[in-house]
Amino acid sequence: MNKHPFDQALRLEAAGSDRPDTWLGASSPAYWNMVGPFGGTTAATALQAILLHPSLLGEPIALTVNYASALAEGPFSITATPVRTNRSTQHWTVELLQADASGAEGVVMTATAVTAARRETWSANDTPMPAVGFSDALPRLRFGTVEWTNRYDMRPVRGMIPQVWDGAGQGGEEGSLTQLWVRDEPPRPLDFPALTAMADAFHPRVWLRRATRVPAGTVSITVYFHADSRQLAQGGGGHLLGQARGQHFRNGFFDQVVQVWNQAGALLATSSQMVYYKE
Amino acid sequence: MNKHPFDQALRLEAAGSDRPDTWLGASSPAYWNMVGPFGGTTAATALQAILLHPSLLGEPIALTVNYASALAEGPFSITATPVRTNRSTQHWTVELLQADASGAEGVVMTATAVTAARRETWSANDTPMPAVGFSDALPRLRFGTVEWTNRYDMRPVRGMIPQVWDGAGQGGEEGSLTQLWVRDEPPRPLDFPALTAMADAFHPRVWLRRATRVPAGTVSITVYFHADSRQLAQGGGGHLLGQARGQHFRNGFFDQVVQVWNQAGALLATSSQMVYYKE
Repeated sequence: MNKHPFDQALRLEAAGSDRPDTWLGASSPAYWNMVGPFGGTTAATALQAILLHPSLLGEPIALTVNYASALAEGPFSITATPVRTNRSTQHWTVELLQADASGAEGVVMTATAVTAARRETWSANDTPMPAVGFSDALPRLRFGTVEWTNRYDMRPVRGMIPQVWDGAGQGGEEGSLTQLWVRDEPPRPLDFPALTAMADAFHPRVWLRRATRVPAGTVSITVYFHADSRQLAQGGGGHLLGQARGQHFRNGFFDQVVQVWNQAGALLATSSQMVYYKE
Repeated sequence: MNKHPFDQALRLEAAGSDRPDTWLGASSPAYWNMVGPFGGTTAATALQAILLHPSLLGEPIALTVNYASALAEGPFSITATPVRTNRSTQHWTVELLQADASGAEGVVMTATAVTAARRETWSANDTPMPAVGFSDALPRLRFGTVEWTNRYDMRPVRGMIPQVWDGAGQGGEEGSLTQLWVRDEPPRPLDFPALTAMADAFHPRVWLRRATRVPAGTVSITVYFHADSRQLAQGGGGHLLGQARGQHFRNGFFDQVVQVWNQAGALLATSSQMVYYKE
């Protein structure tokens, strides 16, 4: 079966009937970053373990993933536990374990999530999509250096990654703002795990802000889902508009806020993350 | 000993040497909300269990708290586990359990956190404080109806809670924006738990946005800490400026983003939350 690389990366097998909350997977070379796989796929894997669970109630509302250590090449186990199920909401804890070189298992990732059966209510979007249109003529971003970026078709509109690392970054509202169109490459129908990964598909704001490529890595990411699965599927595998902006950089950590809209202007997800940086 | 009500609310006792990660506490009538204590104190309690832990490394960087069920009157146990300790960062999971009327223990709250020993680095604030000054002449907000609001001195600058519930809320950027000065009442030196609670001290955006008081409650809150404890202490117990804005309201859930500055204009924390609402 010729599966999409993202589906291959997210492939999980049940660990067995004596461990009903646990799945077995492996880190994906197709999404390799500098010292481990792209964190977006790890976050998507946390969500995938929940979505596969036979006790799942509803659809994702909120997901927080903490990266405790770099995921290494090779197998891991992931456990998603429904710790509380209410009438219309369900609360999850997730833990990803991997053996180190000595064979000792350690925690590589923790996550929590809320899923819910939604009802139709009064609704309003107070964060309209910036007035930028998608065009195939927009040049595709090429990082070249890390494998995972080849799994996305990204078309920056504003706040491209610096072409020259001259330390001449700018502050202010525009200083760390990026807007880019993004979709899986090759295209793949949008679902919650793919949306989760795309919410993490921005290079570290500190690179843009300083025009200096310091070591940096997400320590915690939170994604809020505003769309339901039907709405996600409606856009097919077309480009989404992602926007990221840093808020504050201080003594080794900065945060960024993210919004992701589809081409019809629907705000599908909002996200934030705290990122470690050096120097 | 005449402790501040906030310290009384956060009082935790070690459960015993056979359960080194577990503390015992009780919900606080002084911070009572409509169907349980103010969620800000519950989030602060999650952090407090971490801060009390003898294995703690560094200071808080990121905290996410999920409210699985309403905390009832009476005792609870809370367990904070350091699941991974790296050279300069530490990862935590937290669980709060409470017995129901039948005596069965259930999960009421889950949390994760990252703490870290920070080093001095390049730093920049890209989210300047709005140009509003504090003045004792600003009128103090009076909810009157719930006890916890009496524990804060809040002075709204913009986006006051509606005085008339006429359903005439407004959209746009201003629709759900609130700026208010807030401090503990009586004043109390600022620390991480107090800052955590204040990041949750805004009435639900959906009330402001619709001028309709529908049932609403936070399901998940994330707080990113940009300040260290020395910086927090510098401001004493003076008012902080908090800003909250809703991003998207859809089918029972909305999200809001929050910033909290001190009077010197330092951005102490940023926060986001996903909130359930009815109708």
